[in-house]
Amino acid sequence: MTKKILLSDGEIPRQWYNAAVDIPGGLNPPLDPVSKQPMGPEKLAPIFPMGLLAQEMSDQRFIDIPQEVLDIYAIWRTTPLVRATNLEKALGTKSKIFFKNESVSPVGSHKANSAVPQAFFNMKEGVKRLSTETGAGQWGCALSFATSKFGLECKVYMVRVSFEQKPYRKSMIQTYGATVIPSPSTDTKAGRDILAEFPDTPGSLGIAISEAVEDAFSRQDTKYALGSVLNHVCVHQSVIGLEAKRQLAMAGETADVIIGCCGGGSNFAGLAAPFLPDYLEGKKIRFIGVEPASCPTLTMGKLAYDYGDVAQSTPLLYMYTLGHGFIPPGIHAGGLRYHGMAPMVSAMVRENIVEPLKVQQLECFEAGVLFARAEGIIPAPETCHAIRAAIIEATRDLKKEQTILFNFSGHGLLDMSSYDKYFAGELHDYDYSEAELTRSLAGLPKI
Amino acid sequence: MTKKILLSDGEIPRQWYNAAVDIPGGLNPPLDPVSKQPMGPEKLAPIFPMGLLAQEMSDQRFIDIPQEVLDIYAIWRTTPLVRATNLEKALGTKSKIFFKNESVSPVGSHKANSAVPQAFFNMKEGVKRLSTETGAGQWGCALSFATSKFGLECKVYMVRVSFEQKPYRKSMIQTYGATVIPSPSTDTKAGRDILAEFPDTPGSLGIAISEAVEDAFSRQDTKYALGSVLNHVCVHQSVIGLEAKRQLAMAGETADVIIGCCGGGSNFAGLAAPFLPDYLEGKKIRFIGVEPASCPTLTMGKLAYDYGDVAQSTPLLYMYTLGHGFIPPGIHAGGLRYHGMAPMVSAMVRENIVEPLKVQQLECFEAGVLFARAEGIIPAPETCHAIRAAIIEATRDLKKEQTILFNFSGHGLLDMSSYDKYFAGELHDYDYSEAELTRSLAGLPKI
Repeated sequence: MTKKILLSDGEIPRQWYNAAVDIPGGLNPPLDPVSKQPMGPEKLAPIFPMGLLAQEMSDQRFIDIPQEVLDIYAIWRTTPLVRATNLEKALGTKSKIFFKNESVSPVGSHKANSAVPQAFFNMKEGVKRLSTETGAGQWGCALSFATSKFGLECKVYMVRVSFEQKPYRKSMIQTYGATVIPSPSTDTKAGRDILAEFPDTPGSLGIAISEAVEDAFSRQDTKYALGSVLNHVCVHQSVIGLEAKRQLAMAGETADVIIGCCGGGSNFAGLAAPFLPDYLEGKKIRFIGVEPASCPTLTMGKLAYDYGDVAQSTPLLYMYTLGHGFIPPGIHAGGLRYHGMAPMVSAMVRENIVEPLKVQQLECFEAGVLFARAEGIIPAPETCHAIRAAIIEATRDLKKEQTILFNFSGHGLLDMSSYDKYFAGELHDYDYSEAELTRSLAGLPKI
Repeated sequence: MTKKILLSDGEIPRQWYNAAVDIPGGLNPPLDPVSKQPMGPEKLAPIFPMGLLAQEMSDQRFIDIPQEVLDIYAIWRTTPLVRATNLEKALGTKSKIFFKNESVSPVGSHKANSAVPQAFFNMKEGVKRLSTETGAGQWGCALSFATSKFGLECKVYMVRVSFEQKPYRKSMIQTYGATVIPSPSTDTKAGRDILAEFPDTPGSLGIAISEAVEDAFSRQDTKYALGSVLNHVCVHQSVIGLEAKRQLAMAGETADVIIGCCGGGSNFAGLAAPFLPDYLEGKKIRFIGVEPASCPTLTMGKLAYDYGDVAQSTPLLYMYTLGHGFIPPGIHAGGLRYHGMAPMVSAMVRENIVEPLKVQQLECFEAGVLFARAEGIIPAPETCHAIRAAIIEATRDLKKEQTILFNFSGHGLLDMSSYDKYFAGELHDYDYSEAELTRSLAGLPKI
């Protein structure tokens, strides 16, 4: 057997899979942040194009991928399914470990899978400019790549501390021709208000979202783009799992355990959701969503309606959340620091289809270094969480022959400063007590 | 037709191609730096293992690739051959442009193709530790990846200015478990001597080579590894061209023009040399070796015996050279700054098989940005030189239907500071007058 199971780019899936249709009990609709009534697409039209809103609320199981999107996907898709033979040897396990290598995209992560259709559907409806936020920088790079393909302008509000600590991300965004500024900025009222009160703030994803949304509301030519959480983003990411299913079948394998790291939830949903129909038909599959102990949304949060940002400007989503006021500790080096979780993933946890697992960051970096030395590719800190979970599963009983599949969501070449901190002993583990989460959870809106 | 032409990893070439056998007029042997007599492998045995020396001086056209090397190659090989359809459209050319994407290796460049067999043949002969130098950092990353695969220790002497300006390269090397220190260092006599005289020196490749060679000579358990120039390195890189030939044939294409950037020469030789037999059988192929105007080895240097390092500690190689004392100007942002050129490439230039071309760095970065926005991948500054030449060929006559193949030797994700300098207007073009090169060329040894 070969190490990499490849499909040609003529075999890219022609349709995305929409798991919302199949999840038992379904998904609760988004609510208007003011009236707290269910929101139709027309209410969201000022910030999203109708093409994406139709996907967001679709009752179709499969959604056609436009040819123009397939043409751009072909730059890097299909992605390899790789048997981690060297990691298996290093662990001494009888399990087979496969990973879907999404790091081969031009921007180094799965984020491009949704950035391209988001840019396309905006372009198609005459939108000239997109605004977005980025934390660690993966999404900002992906969207600026995608907008360069469809001739759109793009403005990225990048959390200031990342802007300063990850200058290469900023450079990539500029190379693709987009504009990137540190957030909070003086370009929006939300930014100016924060700066007036906290001139030295390092910024946060919550603030950057507020700026990007305000930007989109304030200009006719501009709409807003989000890189995770929403249904349409998870739907776009389904290409990952659809390809992986086919590749596993080519190798004569079926997955016993499917693993992904969970920040907003889209890379996990992208890999896992296309296996949901098999699960519902009775096939034994364990789905494990891995989150950092320092941001334990699924393991310690509540399933409730909550805002997507600190400023309470977004629709209310029904999801596992730590409260929109939750601020993860600065000790965590990777992404995965969002207070909420994709409603689609939240519903699969609610239905006990997905097992949430929290892991500590030191064990994740240890797993990442082991993986790099075994398989060559240096994983992004986020991806290290999935690797850690795969190692836990593969070593629980070394003689058990399981087939484990995880999503290698991105490489770490632009996150090497996190590895430096790990080697220098500057990173620490962190566990929340329930009492520590009481305050942010108490801030959940009353519905 | 699909955009990417893929081979499975079961189709990795089983043999390397050794162009030295086919180049008309052959190659001149290396000379002992002291006696100036031809050097047999036994004289080089203290610093290289016999397995590599046998390849260095082989009279075999094809050399078997060990299974252990193929197993590691399978992590990223075969690499895709990609039709740059979006670049073609952006240029408005009728030519077809293909690139061989060597940036998909775990370290982001073609360098891994030689690092793996070098580590393997050393391991096989009981060597426990390798020393090497690295300038921009590509080779240091590749060798530390390779030594991690075969359980060797590795010490990398990294040119100090790069060590400080490219901290992510240092972090990668450490993640793979190797040791990296800035050169000149206090760990070698060569380093101490330089530091005593010039305590604030930024270092140079010539100094770092001297340190790494001294390290290997001074320890029984250690040998030295070089990332370009030598025959065995060019031979290892032939996997690039061997795969590309097969992939072009699958697409029903033959290459009219084959392009690579030239620093030490190994990535260019790796792509081009496997097409040499076709050329010698009468097929019309133009081979273009692209170098920076600020280090014009092939276009303004002399074909002569010269040392590989400033300290005159290496064997004398018969090659195009600007003189071992040549120091390229600091304005150049990329690699490709070596004073010499692989004897194999030099001989192909001597025979008028390869056309040398010098290009300026601003036009190269312009080409790199155009490529990034068209094809998504951000090229390394070195690779931008090949892209620039491909664009020149594709746009000389937009209606001419040529098939152009170039080597996408590496991505630029760890070189984004060079793009920053480009966008900030801090990079400049540079041309040497012949008079400026007189002094370093006068330093060539008398043979």
